[in-house]
Amino acid sequence: MAMAELFGGVEGGGTHSTAVLVSGDGQILAETEGPCTNHWLIGSELCLQRIERMVSEAKSKAGADPDVPLRSLGLSLSGADSPEAVAALSRELRRRFPGLSQSVSVNSDSRGAMATASDNGGLVLISGTGSSCKLINPDGSESACGGWGHLMGDEGSAYWIAHQALKAVFDSLDNLQAPPHDIGYARQAMLDYFQISDRMGLLAHLYGSFEKAKFAGFCQKLAQGAQLGDPLCCHIFTKAGEVLARHVVAVLPKIHQSLFVGELGLPILCVGSVWKSWDHLRAGFVQVLEQARAQVPGRLFSRFSLLKLKRSSALGGARLGARNVGMALPLDHTGNVEVFYTHVF
Amino acid sequence: MAMAELFGGVEGGGTHSTAVLVSGDGQILAETEGPCTNHWLIGSELCLQRIERMVSEAKSKAGADPDVPLRSLGLSLSGADSPEAVAALSRELRRRFPGLSQSVSVNSDSRGAMATASDNGGLVLISGTGSSCKLINPDGSESACGGWGHLMGDEGSAYWIAHQALKAVFDSLDNLQAPPHDIGYARQAMLDYFQISDRMGLLAHLYGSFEKAKFAGFCQKLAQGAQLGDPLCCHIFTKAGEVLARHVVAVLPKIHQSLFVGELGLPILCVGSVWKSWDHLRAGFVQVLEQARAQVPGRLFSRFSLLKLKRSSALGGARLGARNVGMALPLDHTGNVEVFYTHVF
Repeated sequence: MAMAELFGGVEGGGTHSTAVLVSGDGQILAETEGPCTNHWLIGSELCLQRIERMVSEAKSKAGADPDVPLRSLGLSLSGADSPEAVAALSRELRRRFPGLSQSVSVNSDSRGAMATASDNGGLVLISGTGSSCKLINPDGSESACGGWGHLMGDEGSAYWIAHQALKAVFDSLDNLQAPPHDIGYARQAMLDYFQISDRMGLLAHLYGSFEKAKFAGFCQKLAQGAQLGDPLCCHIFTKAGEVLARHVVAVLPKIHQSLFVGELGLPILCVGSVWKSWDHLRAGFVQVLEQARAQVPGRLFSRFSLLKLKRSSALGGARLGARNVGMALPLDHTGNVEVFYTHVF
Repeated sequence: MAMAELFGGVEGGGTHSTAVLVSGDGQILAETEGPCTNHWLIGSELCLQRIERMVSEAKSKAGADPDVPLRSLGLSLSGADSPEAVAALSRELRRRFPGLSQSVSVNSDSRGAMATASDNGGLVLISGTGSSCKLINPDGSESACGGWGHLMGDEGSAYWIAHQALKAVFDSLDNLQAPPHDIGYARQAMLDYFQISDRMGLLAHLYGSFEKAKFAGFCQKLAQGAQLGDPLCCHIFTKAGEVLARHVVAVLPKIHQSLFVGELGLPILCVGSVWKSWDHLRAGFVQVLEQARAQVPGRLFSRFSLLKLKRSSALGGARLGARNVGMALPLDHTGNVEVFYTHVF
């Protein structure tokens, strides 16, 4: 086919990744999937290879010449917060794969998600493999809480939920700490999920060949437990809701007034698969925000809404990438996002 | 020199390791040092190489023929708790280095420490790079708490203390959690120790090239802070004392009565460099045991003593290794151990 200018975007998560190719008029021409592209988790080398593969596959899928560079490529990556690391990734991708794209820009996963949903800013609260909270004000100013990875943060994420449950099992069996509820379900789920015969077997998953995505994937079993009404699972999801809300509370003083007063109240863009368990997060989440709302002067904080993306934030990545070369990709924001919960205090 | 039978022992820690060669009459002929030999932290391959190097160096130092195998080699290794892992290490060491020793036996660090100190059993409470508590009763029965590594335990260890301080810094700067005390000292110590200009720089130490020994080494700076009276450092060491004592409380129901009634009361063999900060651990440690002593019936738990080794538990490793080939190495226990604290309730 004749080669119109193509704009690429990648959403890079700790477990899954997605790439899209978009035409200049905003049509999505191809979408491809891949595994984790968080460079902290898998190293830069593998991260770059996986990005190249997804984008090249997308080119093929769109019927485009794989040797013709895209006009721009916008990466929206979990783990892409440090300016040095971002610059290094961008530089190396261009050096290693010069035919991939004329221009490469790297953004955090939060920015890509926000660019997919809205031009007006808001909060992005990620709870997937890891977790983080980023405030983007309408004037472009930003503030953040969390996003430090599983060794220093990730509260309320799938990793954290899995860890909380396993820690309750270990501490209970050790007689170190009485569990808040019976560990029976979580213990059996652990043995089944990790295919081990006792907890000693978990050490190989933790230290021998640690894979955060695999570890965090255990959260799904706990979500099923919560769904079945297992008290320990329900308890941990409530705690996760609390600590996710505390990320919002942390940036509350920095939120621009105008973000409170729309029809939806404070808009919180919820990204990541843990939000599928919103029913079990809710009690803790709402309670913490209820307690904190008085911190915002003038009773401005009277409601909040949770939004989720209907499309991959690879789209937002593509948009930021195009903007980086002076192009405004026309994306229909309203089609990309939906409100799944509104709370009026 | 003519080759008398030699008995080797290795103490393998998460940061440092030691090897000794002992003659059949219990004389220490050579001692060598090496880095971390915890196979969970560095992998089995490097672990085996480092053990071989230390033992071979010790042979040279003792003037022994490096090609003549030792009579026995007893490894006392941190991370050597899983039977499968222990069997694999022992098998591989013999296969890779058949000239090293006629017999190889692998024990946990706790067992090696206990074998260095006493034949009567007691508690071994390790707080070095990592932490663990093992009860060895006079009848040989065992019980344990902790020892699950930094992702699932290590409470009260150097890793844990370093993590607590850094987490306080991160959470305070994030406005996620108010610190119990000013973070000024800990924050500056973090920047100095890791040679970073802001906390983003810590991510490379956590995820890019994580070295537990390096991370845990930050604890030394916090010990200095506690020594200088920094309230946050003091607070964290008190908390470490509490949680270490909770390991003792966890195994309290399993402790054989006879261990309480000696002159020293309950003997707790304290292993690892965090115990150098006992002055700062004490308040928390004593308080938790004070509260728990009523759990032991008959007022048996009326005192406890903390002991430390004056010699490497590589000696105990050598002893266990010799025992494995039917030899009883005559070691002077009283010279290997000293009481550094006795508490009468």
